Amino acid sequence: MKIIEQPDDMTLKAVLKRPYVKKELITADVSMILKKVQEGGDSAIIEFTNKFDGVEIKDIIVTRQEIETAIEEVPEALKMAISKSRRNIEKFHASQRVIEHKIETTPGVYCWRRSVPIEKVGIYIPGGSAPLFSTVLMLAIPARLAGCSQIVLCSPPNQEGKIHPAILYAADLIGVDLVVKAGGAQAIGALAFGTESIPKVSKIFGPGNQYVTKAKELITTQGTAIDMPAGPSEVMVIADKTANPDFVAIDLLSQAEHGPDSQVVLVATEREVANNVVKSLNTQIEALPRVSIATQAIDNSVAIITDEFKNILQIINRYAPEHLIINTENAHKIADQVVNAGSIFIGPYSAESIGDYASGTNHTLPTNGYAAMYSGVSLDSFVKKITYQEVTAQGLKNIGPVVEEMAQAESLMAHKRAVTIRLQSLKKE
Amino acid sequence: MKIIEQPDDMTLKAVLKRPYVKKELITADVSMILKKVQEGGDSAIIEFTNKFDGVEIKDIIVTRQEIETAIEEVPEALKMAISKSRRNIEKFHASQRVIEHKIETTPGVYCWRRSVPIEKVGIYIPGGSAPLFSTVLMLAIPARLAGCSQIVLCSPPNQEGKIHPAILYAADLIGVDLVVKAGGAQAIGALAFGTESIPKVSKIFGPGNQYVTKAKELITTQGTAIDMPAGPSEVMVIADKTANPDFVAIDLLSQAEHGPDSQVVLVATEREVANNVVKSLNTQIEALPRVSIATQAIDNSVAIITDEFKNILQIINRYAPEHLIINTENAHKIADQVVNAGSIFIGPYSAESIGDYASGTNHTLPTNGYAAMYSGVSLDSFVKKITYQEVTAQGLKNIGPVVEEMAQAESLMAHKRAVTIRLQSLKKE
Repeated sequence: MKIIEQPDDMTLKAVLKRPYVKKELITADVSMILKKVQEGGDSAIIEFTNKFDGVEIKDIIVTRQEIETAIEEVPEALKMAISKSRRNIEKFHASQRVIEHKIETTPGVYCWRRSVPIEKVGIYIPGGSAPLFSTVLMLAIPARLAGCSQIVLCSPPNQEGKIHPAILYAADLIGVDLVVKAGGAQAIGALAFGTESIPKVSKIFGPGNQYVTKAKELITTQGTAIDMPAGPSEVMVIADKTANPDFVAIDLLSQAEHGPDSQVVLVATEREVANNVVKSLNTQIEALPRVSIATQAIDNSVAIITDEFKNILQIINRYAPEHLIINTENAHKIADQVVNAGSIFIGPYSAESIGDYASGTNHTLPTNGYAAMYSGVSLDSFVKKITYQEVTAQGLKNIGPVVEEMAQAESLMAHKRAVTIRLQSLKKE
Repeated sequence: MKIIEQPDDMTLKAVLKRPYVKKELITADVSMILKKVQEGGDSAIIEFTNKFDGVEIKDIIVTRQEIETAIEEVPEALKMAISKSRRNIEKFHASQRVIEHKIETTPGVYCWRRSVPIEKVGIYIPGGSAPLFSTVLMLAIPARLAGCSQIVLCSPPNQEGKIHPAILYAADLIGVDLVVKAGGAQAIGALAFGTESIPKVSKIFGPGNQYVTKAKELITTQGTAIDMPAGPSEVMVIADKTANPDFVAIDLLSQAEHGPDSQVVLVATEREVANNVVKSLNTQIEALPRVSIATQAIDNSVAIITDEFKNILQIINRYAPEHLIINTENAHKIADQVVNAGSIFIGPYSAESIGDYASGTNHTLPTNGYAAMYSGVSLDSFVKKITYQEVTAQGLKNIGPVVEEMAQAESLMAHKRAVTIRLQSLKKE
């Protein structure tokens, strides 16, 4: 971990710059996969699963029997934990429901909005070493709360042609309608275009490798929406001398163990704080099973020393971290003034992992600086809002002349006449 | 206008299919323009304005003097109309503010959200025959209400190097911070990357031609957000025998006069209704200055005859119209069950043009079927929501074991330890 003291503006800019991820090289490959899935449907999925996941599958749809088996395989202790986490996620996301009011903008002119669930949504859950059943909860729970009528989940099968039981258990628990054994760009293609057995969805959510990310990017130009653009996960921790250096170090390591490209930034109010954190980090990292991954991420990480409140805020807002842990005496004062961040963790006991799993907030968050303009996933992500207007005869009399004047000035005469002939009809009455 | 009676499912699918717009041909051109703007800044803007707009400009930023002159040039009657429209748009968009509550999901675990304005936003206003000052209102008003700290507006200059006074007037009235003489893909590039005199923004809003649309699409993969994907404007009108055929016809023509690619669909509950509308349409179209544009759009349009309530709803939801006018006796009953639409106009007096200009709803809406998963522009479009969590010592004791169990099952041991060492520290106390 590189330590930089009181950086000037140019140094700061360089230090906070995210690594450039070259994506263009795989565009052609991913486009080809999407096209083949669009043309070939289920058989293309089976073919790509054979090629990329190294397993021959006959039925890409997970059967009820497979789910029943999974339910038996998940230990009771984990079921209990999932149940408690689920309750918190439900509580917080249910609180995001909005009551919309009908507004009379001008006498006789009424405007309002109505939240309507997106009918069909897709959820992508990566395979690999760790079964991300927590992401199933984070995406399926708000989808269910919003009232989406069909939730389709895709996840790549392992070498035995199976999906991890914890993923199947969580999907079934929340009420996912269909679980598909498909991963990578081919799964995104299946959700975007539909196949014989997989329904086409309107919006796709979830993390993935660079092929999944590129496929999600490409299908947004072909009529399917996505949750948000993706990037490597990241954390920024703000620590002062009241922070326990062991807590700060393990929070940095929590992020670092995600992958060698994970971004980790420490902002310490004094040199000694940073030194103590680095010392603790070097000890704690050795005890981790993912020590080699974490070491790579930590090697690319940086600690910035600055004691000025306004500098700390500037560093946060310029970086726009996905996760921001504020472990300082004045944590609330900082938290209230942050402009760019995905999710904020306040005080000594709010470890990032609590938000990752169970506090109730969503862990699907904007990375790569996107917190400057995107929100994390929430109930909002699964609905769209239709606007309504109803104009009475009196309303038309009140607002009609305004519309006529403006339409005339924009040279749109049919727009003007749509009002004029209505006003004339009222005069005749 | 083609009339189709009681179409079967396959016919309906074909009839409601939107025309395919080939965009790939201009990708290389637009990429090149974006790249040159990123490298060349202001001088590239000046060069492209010379090339594409045919006018040599020295200062791309509109001066205070130009704005003062514009304010003098706009007629008082139009100023009055803009003022009334502005009040309605402000009222409705202000009503979209949400009060977020702090939720205690588990004793000692607090979660909440905070709406924060996107700091810098860009607005694109096309040039051409009609000066779209109404779009300035629709985008700048919610930006200002949301609290965006910098609003930059780009619009191409005319042959005299000027922007239409009504656009400058509206921009100044609402409080746009900077107006730039730039159009097309080069304007989008300037907003996305910034130049010497144009600040880089985080999100770009507004309509445009295919070059603007493609540029907006491309910059979303390079760190800038956009309002929504674009497509030709469209209206669907539902009419029964209680509807005045002249009203229906002029509503269809309002849409048709936007451009030859405008989509116009009539759903009539009986043949006679459609016949009367077509008859009125053929008369009214002749009086329009944009008769040739409107004729092209109407030639590609369709009227569907169906009297069954469930068929009408199916047609609406399948097409997902940008604008939906329901001019029937049971308008509310239909409106309440619509799932996919941008903005809905209820009853005989709610002409689309009233929503386009002055009812208070936003006229930047999802086209091309995107109403199935995107909302129109609203106050929400100019903010992002940061989630917060604060866990007390008691909260940690309550939820910590859940996090340990789940992190263990996902093989993320640092995630687990971040909780474990905190729990241990509490035991020591």
